[in-house]
Amino acid sequence: MSTRPSIPKGTRDFSPDEILNREFIFDTIKSVFKLYGYQPVETPAMETLSTLLGKYGDEGDRLIFRILNSGDFFSGLSDSELSERNLSKIAGQICEKGLRYDLTVPFARYVVQHRDEIVFPFRRYQIQPVWRADRPQKGRYREFFQCDVDVIGSDSLLNEYELIRIIDNVFSKLKINIRIKLNNRKILSGIAEYIGEFERITDITTAIDKIEKIGLDAVNLELKDKGVSEEAVRKLQPLLAIEGGAETKLDRLENLLSKSATGMKGVSEMRELFSYVESGILSGMVELDITLARGLNYYTGTIMEVKSADVSIGSICGGGRYDNLTGVFGMDGISGVGISFGADRIYDVMKQSDLFTGIISASSQVLVINFGQSSVEYAFKILELLRNLGVKTEFYPDPVKIKKQMTYADNRKIPFIIIPGEDELKAGEVTVKNMASGKQKKIPFRELKSFVLSDISPLRQIT
Amino acid sequence: MSTRPSIPKGTRDFSPDEILNREFIFDTIKSVFKLYGYQPVETPAMETLSTLLGKYGDEGDRLIFRILNSGDFFSGLSDSELSERNLSKIAGQICEKGLRYDLTVPFARYVVQHRDEIVFPFRRYQIQPVWRADRPQKGRYREFFQCDVDVIGSDSLLNEYELIRIIDNVFSKLKINIRIKLNNRKILSGIAEYIGEFERITDITTAIDKIEKIGLDAVNLELKDKGVSEEAVRKLQPLLAIEGGAETKLDRLENLLSKSATGMKGVSEMRELFSYVESGILSGMVELDITLARGLNYYTGTIMEVKSADVSIGSICGGGRYDNLTGVFGMDGISGVGISFGADRIYDVMKQSDLFTGIISASSQVLVINFGQSSVEYAFKILELLRNLGVKTEFYPDPVKIKKQMTYADNRKIPFIIIPGEDELKAGEVTVKNMASGKQKKIPFRELKSFVLSDISPLRQIT
Repeated sequence: MSTRPSIPKGTRDFSPDEILNREFIFDTIKSVFKLYGYQPVETPAMETLSTLLGKYGDEGDRLIFRILNSGDFFSGLSDSELSERNLSKIAGQICEKGLRYDLTVPFARYVVQHRDEIVFPFRRYQIQPVWRADRPQKGRYREFFQCDVDVIGSDSLLNEYELIRIIDNVFSKLKINIRIKLNNRKILSGIAEYIGEFERITDITTAIDKIEKIGLDAVNLELKDKGVSEEAVRKLQPLLAIEGGAETKLDRLENLLSKSATGMKGVSEMRELFSYVESGILSGMVELDITLARGLNYYTGTIMEVKSADVSIGSICGGGRYDNLTGVFGMDGISGVGISFGADRIYDVMKQSDLFTGIISASSQVLVINFGQSSVEYAFKILELLRNLGVKTEFYPDPVKIKKQMTYADNRKIPFIIIPGEDELKAGEVTVKNMASGKQKKIPFRELKSFVLSDISPLRQIT
Repeated sequence: MSTRPSIPKGTRDFSPDEILNREFIFDTIKSVFKLYGYQPVETPAMETLSTLLGKYGDEGDRLIFRILNSGDFFSGLSDSELSERNLSKIAGQICEKGLRYDLTVPFARYVVQHRDEIVFPFRRYQIQPVWRADRPQKGRYREFFQCDVDVIGSDSLLNEYELIRIIDNVFSKLKINIRIKLNNRKILSGIAEYIGEFERITDITTAIDKIEKIGLDAVNLELKDKGVSEEAVRKLQPLLAIEGGAETKLDRLENLLSKSATGMKGVSEMRELFSYVESGILSGMVELDITLARGLNYYTGTIMEVKSADVSIGSICGGGRYDNLTGVFGMDGISGVGISFGADRIYDVMKQSDLFTGIISASSQVLVINFGQSSVEYAFKILELLRNLGVKTEFYPDPVKIKKQMTYADNRKIPFIIIPGEDELKAGEVTVKNMASGKQKKIPFRELKSFVLSDISPLRQIT
């Protein structure tokens, strides 16, 4: 084979430094989730297709990776069915399982399946990869991690407020400046009702969600294309033009939507949520944005989205309330709310903002030089001592030239080397070299421990 | 839908307590890997099938989960090809990707693909799930985690010794008593040569690997079934009967295998490795077992296997040296050695030996009771104080009856509740209740911090 092997498009290998930086993000997120009393859950990479299909819309169904059945995968198909080439029917026959597309639907499945073991309200977090057969592009991968946190079994808007606090805590710890946008699906429903196009709610929300990206004119054009009447588009304009703080916007909406019970419910929910937000330290970064819609259809109340204030990269966290997520699995009347942190985009933001500098290194702290058979036992003693002190230590495995071993230490950015040469062995000493300064000195073996504690351990990396 | 949803057979959901116990295992393993200077790498769940196929034998190929191509997966297939139903050919056409089957082959692919960025010898660890379409049974899953650690680019047997030290460190920390078995593939080759059946080396090693499970007679029967001559089976018997310590066994082997250069090389490698082992604290738990063969074909030198000394569950860690793993990807002459920890079996051993007791709990430390709108702001103040002190704290989201909230705390095993009632609010106090003792007392809010530090924080769980 002459060409190098490669990996499927849209997937990635992670190098040691990348992994340690990513672990820093995951650990930070996890520590905040735990601080708020959320508990971890994990689900299998594969779900049965009946669990996954029909939950993400037609487009979502197409993006689910399907796993070919083991054994005789054609067994249920006649020759004529095969030659008919009805692909979606055939895919349904030859594949029973798919890779999870997000963490929300598997969580809903989990809740229903384990309802008897769960204490409600159930606060869970879940940090696992998901897979989508999306066209790969910059910042969009076919395998990526989601970090989800949800409360299920409580209607209270205090849950929404808690999630906003969690968002603030996580991004403060990561030193990322953010803006949080809130809206409520009921307000969007109220708007659709008010302009007399209640049936076209999905088209309307999909269109106005793009206002920031494509501008008002293009949104109006799209609405007309979808068959929304001129009259309705005209009635929509003052709504999209509402400006001001949350309270001003809510007053104005209350006026306009007064005939829609759903719209009024949305307004009052937002009033309550903003009363919590404004009682605290968050008010500056939280905004009511009535053009915020978010794609997924299962949201029914609050929706939220977080963007970096400094790096332009799309949303880095988002979510909302769903009133009946578990309904499709036969368990009705359970309301939940949750958000998902996008670890890959957060990584990109931190990388671009240089926020990893100096925090984390994958290198060992000491390399013990290999002098060959005669000093192996002496080296073992040194290794034992260092590792018992918790110092990350390597022993060069081959007795090659010292220069080569030093080059290795340099390339691996290992700050100290210890030389257990024959002279040192005889004298009961070791030579310690600081690779940055180039300085080296001989130390009696019995003083090595205190030298390590005073000069090497303090340099210990976070990981 | 009336039946509860379920997950594919051979896969598992993990509950909060299970995850925290598993994290304890992963974190322990990871901390030891880091202490020895190994660096993390991660690879995608999916690899191209050309990377995976042909590396694990025919049986392995059959056990790889394949992912159906997106779009028109039948496009390259004519009607006659479809009706021919040559399943393996069709699977090759409709699937380009598969789920990784282990971490070793993806690692070899990684090394070749990233050879220009890697500093050799390269010490890497990798902790990720793998998938196998095996028939599920007790202790065998279709999705399970491997924890691999390998050094690549060094022939030295000091690497093998280091891995044995790592094994000892990990299992000491987990408090699992173990026995380690070592052997060398070159000794097995020498034996096959000596008995005059060098071509049947795979059949021979596969058979004698089962000696512990099925007994000597059954092994001999299997050998004859596979076409190994009576004469060869007869010559094999004294070898299988060799007893004693490593040195005795090696002396005896040296005698018998003196005509096999490969066999003699194997003996001398084992002598060197045992000289390291016996210089240290490990000698009691390490044994030379010449019936140890291990399944995978890519091993060429040392092989090792770890079993629990107390729980009968098969091997919980194993691995060996491979001289040319990267050769199949076009990079020759790179020797490596590595082992894999079986996290799922380790979990089962710890569970059966009651080693998780008292270590880890998924519960919060404090539940703040919800008294309704009038005391929400007071509750926020209390939450802020507790979480700033790092105390895992929940606020009950709904203002339901206190009794119901207390039951929730009981079920969730939360040790303290704090009651910010209206009387307390007026008096500037909080009521704290210890759920275990049932005792409760009023504390001025300004003394809450010192109470938390003295009475609640010390009970803080590890996680």
